[in-house]
Amino acid sequence: MGLDALFSPRAVAVVGASNRELTIGYRIIENLLDFGYAGPIYPVNPKGGEIRGLKAYASILDTPDPVDVAHIVIRNKYVPACIEDCAKKGVKAVIVNTAGFREIGEEGAALEDQLVAIARKTGIRVFGPNCQGVINTDPAVRAYCNFTFTRPTPGHISIVAQSGGVGEVIHQRITELGVGARHYASNGNACDVSIPEIIQHYGADEQTKVIVVHIESLPDSRAFLEVATQVARRKPILAMKVGRTAEGAKAVSSHTGGMMKQDTAIELIFEKAGIVPFRNIEELCQSAIGFASQPIPVGNRVGMIANTGGPAIIATDELIENGMVMPPLSKQTESLLREKLYPEASINNPVDVLATAGPEHFAAAINALLADDGIDAVFLNFVTPFFVDTLGVAREIAEANRGSRKPIVATVMTEKKGWAETLDLIRNGGVPTYDMPETGAKVLASMGRYAALLKRPIEPPVSFSDTDAPRARSIIKAAGQAKKACLSADEGYDLLTCYGIPVAGYRTAGNVDECLAAADEIGYPVVLKVDAESVVHKTDSGGVVLDIHDREALRTQAEQMAARFAGASPRFLVQQQLPGGTGVSPVIQQEVIVGAKAVEGLGHAVMFGLGGIYIEVLKDVNFKITPVTAHEAREMIESLRAYPLLAGVRGQAGVNVAALAEIIQRVSQMLVDNPEIRELDINPLFAFQDGAKAADIRVLL
Amino acid sequence: MGLDALFSPRAVAVVGASNRELTIGYRIIENLLDFGYAGPIYPVNPKGGEIRGLKAYASILDTPDPVDVAHIVIRNKYVPACIEDCAKKGVKAVIVNTAGFREIGEEGAALEDQLVAIARKTGIRVFGPNCQGVINTDPAVRAYCNFTFTRPTPGHISIVAQSGGVGEVIHQRITELGVGARHYASNGNACDVSIPEIIQHYGADEQTKVIVVHIESLPDSRAFLEVATQVARRKPILAMKVGRTAEGAKAVSSHTGGMMKQDTAIELIFEKAGIVPFRNIEELCQSAIGFASQPIPVGNRVGMIANTGGPAIIATDELIENGMVMPPLSKQTESLLREKLYPEASINNPVDVLATAGPEHFAAAINALLADDGIDAVFLNFVTPFFVDTLGVAREIAEANRGSRKPIVATVMTEKKGWAETLDLIRNGGVPTYDMPETGAKVLASMGRYAALLKRPIEPPVSFSDTDAPRARSIIKAAGQAKKACLSADEGYDLLTCYGIPVAGYRTAGNVDECLAAADEIGYPVVLKVDAESVVHKTDSGGVVLDIHDREALRTQAEQMAARFAGASPRFLVQQQLPGGTGVSPVIQQEVIVGAKAVEGLGHAVMFGLGGIYIEVLKDVNFKITPVTAHEAREMIESLRAYPLLAGVRGQAGVNVAALAEIIQRVSQMLVDNPEIRELDINPLFAFQDGAKAADIRVLL
Repeated sequence: MGLDALFSPRAVAVVGASNRELTIGYRIIENLLDFGYAGPIYPVNPKGGEIRGLKAYASILDTPDPVDVAHIVIRNKYVPACIEDCAKKGVKAVIVNTAGFREIGEEGAALEDQLVAIARKTGIRVFGPNCQGVINTDPAVRAYCNFTFTRPTPGHISIVAQSGGVGEVIHQRITELGVGARHYASNGNACDVSIPEIIQHYGADEQTKVIVVHIESLPDSRAFLEVATQVARRKPILAMKVGRTAEGAKAVSSHTGGMMKQDTAIELIFEKAGIVPFRNIEELCQSAIGFASQPIPVGNRVGMIANTGGPAIIATDELIENGMVMPPLSKQTESLLREKLYPEASINNPVDVLATAGPEHFAAAINALLADDGIDAVFLNFVTPFFVDTLGVAREIAEANRGSRKPIVATVMTEKKGWAETLDLIRNGGVPTYDMPETGAKVLASMGRYAALLKRPIEPPVSFSDTDAPRARSIIKAAGQAKKACLSADEGYDLLTCYGIPVAGYRTAGNVDECLAAADEIGYPVVLKVDAESVVHKTDSGGVVLDIHDREALRTQAEQMAARFAGASPRFLVQQQLPGGTGVSPVIQQEVIVGAKAVEGLGHAVMFGLGGIYIEVLKDVNFKITPVTAHEAREMIESLRAYPLLAGVRGQAGVNVAALAEIIQRVSQMLVDNPEIRELDINPLFAFQDGAKAADIRVLL
Repeated sequence: MGLDALFSPRAVAVVGASNRELTIGYRIIENLLDFGYAGPIYPVNPKGGEIRGLKAYASILDTPDPVDVAHIVIRNKYVPACIEDCAKKGVKAVIVNTAGFREIGEEGAALEDQLVAIARKTGIRVFGPNCQGVINTDPAVRAYCNFTFTRPTPGHISIVAQSGGVGEVIHQRITELGVGARHYASNGNACDVSIPEIIQHYGADEQTKVIVVHIESLPDSRAFLEVATQVARRKPILAMKVGRTAEGAKAVSSHTGGMMKQDTAIELIFEKAGIVPFRNIEELCQSAIGFASQPIPVGNRVGMIANTGGPAIIATDELIENGMVMPPLSKQTESLLREKLYPEASINNPVDVLATAGPEHFAAAINALLADDGIDAVFLNFVTPFFVDTLGVAREIAEANRGSRKPIVATVMTEKKGWAETLDLIRNGGVPTYDMPETGAKVLASMGRYAALLKRPIEPPVSFSDTDAPRARSIIKAAGQAKKACLSADEGYDLLTCYGIPVAGYRTAGNVDECLAAADEIGYPVVLKVDAESVVHKTDSGGVVLDIHDREALRTQAEQMAARFAGASPRFLVQQQLPGGTGVSPVIQQEVIVGAKAVEGLGHAVMFGLGGIYIEVLKDVNFKITPVTAHEAREMIESLRAYPLLAGVRGQAGVNVAALAEIIQRVSQMLVDNPEIRELDINPLFAFQDGAKAADIRVLL
């Protein structure tokens, strides 16, 4: 594996080691020593001598063989030469803690480019620069190659964070909660070793049970998506995306661009990869603890046990609001509970065993729910009354957990000093405990969310074979060669036709007479549209006239339009007026929009929504990253708030949702084949009971 | 004050005191002793002797004078007689810890009614039954009249909780966080002493700076609303409402009823009263700590200071998403910061003072932001680097806080043991510290939310004088006497007219000829509607025909409708067809709905929303409790997601929002005057550029 030497070095050197306590060059050596690093540590300092009791070497070249990792904490301009020396020495990876690279501007960026060049040339790996480093808590390694302050406990949570500050907050928090980390990495400017590589390394590490990711931006978005998709199928990845409210991406002239928030692409990548997303560090940490200690539920059906009602209500609210369900218990479970609990106990879901319930009651309730085929996970709300044998209850919880294949999550509400032993018994029994009902509920719901992600079909995108991809390529290429920023209307419709996307009948026309001839061929009523590269918002500028019923009206409108756009040397488009286009027809139809926007280094984000106010006012719109699978296309449609309007409301028949899903997938295939497309809007796409037809198209290159 | 004796008793008796450690009768005495209760404690037990070293009395009547509070922990059936004795003795209040009352069913309810009767008769106050009790941490009192386990620290947060379990979790959590409580009360079945009374008591207590409320239901909703409104103007009330996802209230046959979730009334009461609502105990506790230690900001403009970027991004997201703003700094602040911070520091909002920043940099930044007139509150993100004088930074934070009239909230990310002294310095300086950026940000945002609530105009509802209230009363009374469940159409329109609500012109008709005559008077086009008490959903059952343009069409439709509803002995309504009613007119208009539903013991909840899919599919609707003020009416309209459709989108003029706000207030006045109205629907109400007209009305009694 590529990063083995980085995470499990046979020896570590620190170039720029120092005896001054408040320096990074001292702190790293101290951290390595304190944490009990298994290999030799070589301080490197031109003055030689001793640093914190270790022999210091004048140069990395003087250190004994082999050195796998070298920290570099000398001034930025000396770093490239130092890495050359390290490469000469046979060092496998350098951790460049030094700052003053890409983050300070052009000069630093040039320096950073030198590091990358050396890495490419020599094969040495560069971690950083401007970074913290890595930690491996494996008892056989204990490499604390970092200058942070958390003293880790070995465990099963592996962390990778773009921001060292946030990474340290996460690591500190899980440690404070008494839970162990496996690996830690924060790679700063990430000029060579990347976050996707680190995730891949964690994915292959058997002792890593859950991966925690913090990112602020994603330069390697396609690599990230591919690696994360593979890894997330085998173990949970929990990720935090920040910068949600940063000033939006600069305005673009299309709906798609306008609706796409700056961070939408990363949210979409998380979703496509099957990553569990978080908006909150605390919930991320608490959930990681749940994932690290409990199996994944096979579904979202929770059975709850409580010994007091109030917190159970709070946990129920939180579970339900986060996608879990609390089904009725089976008849068998009910009769079992009726037999074993107090007569006043409430035999529902939640089960209230009563405040006076002892170990035998808790044992009966937990085991009954674990045995109930209608329950996927057990949630405990345990307040520790002073008159109850809470140690006994704790023992029963731990005992029930042993060998259970369903997850158990517990909220234990207590005075932590007085009931420390009770808490320890439960935790040491492998059941994560939370202070607050809402916290435990959110954790279990995040496990349910991962279970749902795992259930998504693993399917390649549909490959439609009834397409004319070569012809589409030639349209795009020709437009590119002509340096067009925007396809003409008939090029756009042609493109759709190449991918089997139905289009409202149309003809292009150069003048009024050609318009009249076109309409005769198509049949009235028709729509008249201007077609000129310089006219972007046709409707707003009077470039679209609907509902033209005869030759006379068409002549008048065409003459007026020709005059209106005289300066733009316009052509015209005469198009079939689709039924329902004016809103008064009894034909069932909805205006929808399919749009797309290129995302650098990733592909395209495809958009779907209902037209008009649904997008503009209500912001009811969904995005997916190409290639869009059949499952994703349906999800895009069905998760709209306004979906009932497509499915049919109040007994009215709906439109053909399957046809819409197919069009989304065909558009996706077109985008994958033609990466030159920068933006695309099919607006409106008319959806009917028996299919759908594009009535306007705009393609920017 | 009514509850002074309860919270500050001169002596406490425990009837049912016991020497067995695992009983409530022992635990209460132990708690009183352990916490150092200032007055005498009298155990009462028929066996006499000694209990935990205190002389026990055979009866409450034997105890020395005076006893202000008596706990009662004997079996339920003996409680009434015991209270009689307590009253005889001159006890001011009994805390009935004993369970087995209303919560167990009819028999218990009858027993509970006896307690209430004794209280009414004798003037003794009954707290509970089936409750925990109260705590007063006032150093001069130290009354721990409760059997819970939290050892309180005296402080400024007062708690009242319906669920003892949740109350204890809240109390435990703030104590664990090192913050003090003032009063605590959990009154269980609340047969006599009520939560509103307790809130009033806390409101009058000078040492209570913030009131924390947990409720699951609100039997005294009007009293709660009135008390909370008064108190919340003087000090913050933070409240948790639970049961959000409980199975909804049973379906009712109107939109209003259908849209009204079970708990909506309580949410509306919180809003009207100016209570800060929470959905999460942890956030409630953390916020209480902020409110208890810092002044309320005068606005929502936050200035942020950070020494590392990652957490600042997270805090920014959370602040903005919760209604705060982060404005640019003033020129003066910028130049001040440029002078005093490192040259590489980022002089924006957030200010990044850099990881290497020391006490002087933090001091400069905090003081500059506190002095900036464009900033209402300062948010600190402080990671404690090992190479920085963090004690010095802490001292400067505390120093800046002294005398600041703007709130300062700090997130301190650290290893708590190693940096305990730093944390203590900040906290003891009065600045609340949080582990996570999102937590601190949510706390500050909740303070901003309270500031916004305080800014709402204190205005009585408008009293419209151009109404005919007596005539409305007579319509309602006559319908009541005739035992009608539903007003007829003309009664409904009459009612609206009495309150000056414009109505589309209409005539009632008993047969086809009368319909024709009516239409001649009104003028075509007209709408024909059936009017029969048994027909609830007229549209769905074919009881409404729009867009009738001439006599012939009207005759045909009237004959068909008469046949369709022959069984219901129908009457008919012929009504003016409003412009735009069919959706094709160029007249700007929107269909909206004003609805209302009686809420027992409280008044009415008034509803406003756009008609059709906006309510049915998108659930875009707002409620307020009567009487609706002018400010509230505007808020109901303006906070709809679809509000831009009323205000005007894409350069289109909007409808007359002021007219809609006035109609809402007039409906509110009608509801206050006529509490017999159970449900009301004005649907549709047509809104135009120059006003609005009701086109259909349904009133259930």
